[in-house]
Amino acid sequence: MAQTKKGEMTRDHILKTTRAILMANGFHDTSINDIIKVTGVTKGNLYYHFAGKEDIGLAVLEDVKEEFFKFLAESFIGDTPCAKVANSCQAIFEEQKKNNFVGGCLFGNAALEMSDSNPRFSKVIRSVCAHWIREIDHYLSLAKEGHSLHVNVSPGMLAKAIVATIEGGIMLSRVTKDQADLEDCLTVIRAMLGE
Amino acid sequence: MAQTKKGEMTRDHILKTTRAILMANGFHDTSINDIIKVTGVTKGNLYYHFAGKEDIGLAVLEDVKEEFFKFLAESFIGDTPCAKVANSCQAIFEEQKKNNFVGGCLFGNAALEMSDSNPRFSKVIRSVCAHWIREIDHYLSLAKEGHSLHVNVSPGMLAKAIVATIEGGIMLSRVTKDQADLEDCLTVIRAMLGE
Repeated sequence: MAQTKKGEMTRDHILKTTRAILMANGFHDTSINDIIKVTGVTKGNLYYHFAGKEDIGLAVLEDVKEEFFKFLAESFIGDTPCAKVANSCQAIFEEQKKNNFVGGCLFGNAALEMSDSNPRFSKVIRSVCAHWIREIDHYLSLAKEGHSLHVNVSPGMLAKAIVATIEGGIMLSRVTKDQADLEDCLTVIRAMLGE
Repeated sequence: MAQTKKGEMTRDHILKTTRAILMANGFHDTSINDIIKVTGVTKGNLYYHFAGKEDIGLAVLEDVKEEFFKFLAESFIGDTPCAKVANSCQAIFEEQKKNNFVGGCLFGNAALEMSDSNPRFSKVIRSVCAHWIREIDHYLSLAKEGHSLHVNVSPGMLAKAIVATIEGGIMLSRVTKDQADLEDCLTVIRAMLGE
């Protein structure tokens, strides 16, 4: 039992440490040796937990996905459905700001780096996007029912555009290292929501 | 003179062919040997034109930038400033559709792959984003002056959000290989423009 617990801790340590170098350098530019170096585990121990680099990359994505879904669920705070969506977007901005817009969004990075070449990676990224869009769509549909959504598009379309605007805004702020870019995108989202 | 012309053609051949593999595999995963293989030029000839891989990558970005600015200048077609912006966005959608959403946007890819680690790359990407935003801002400002822009945000902010939405929408469609994602983003942009 203690051994299992230690194994779980090692696995989690590998995932969290590898996440940091994947954010900084991307998947292709990170080697198994880089992972061994930063995690400090032996090659044998690494291969005990993971079949190879692709397996580690996938497990990191799944780990971040789980964390993001939890973060997302707690981010829809506010008195009205539109306020909940606006605050959720704001929470993502605060997260990016904490990291000084370095690293960006791991899913966005992986989407651009891997989605044409690796179907296992793109499946995880697709499921993250779909869940995120569905959550926003849920609140926008409530707003539409309550006649408090005044843009002339369907809640599903608007939800998709909001996710796209945030991902694109993260990209802009990452390139310029200027928080105003993502901030301006949020202002436009808020205007569309009437918030 | 003939030699110069031949040299220019070789340089251009290297740029166009390397662009295709950079779109597919990214910068880090493309080696000098890959470039020699796909271009068919000798190592000596390659190094005659470029100092190294970073130099080729930058020259490819500059080449695509020049092409994109020309494309952009010709894309603002329509009777009103808002129609011009909407049609320009539509033209970018058609380009992505032609490529079946494979490869995505080279600037977006490079932004996510290189902007934290390579200041020379991020300078080019920043100049592309700034020019694109400025062009849209120009037409939205005309629309604002003519009282035909009905969103309650500044033209500059809206221009930035439009570029972000397109980049994010390209990312979504690239992951899902479903044109509906970028298409829905365009519908929302058009609704914001009252088009």
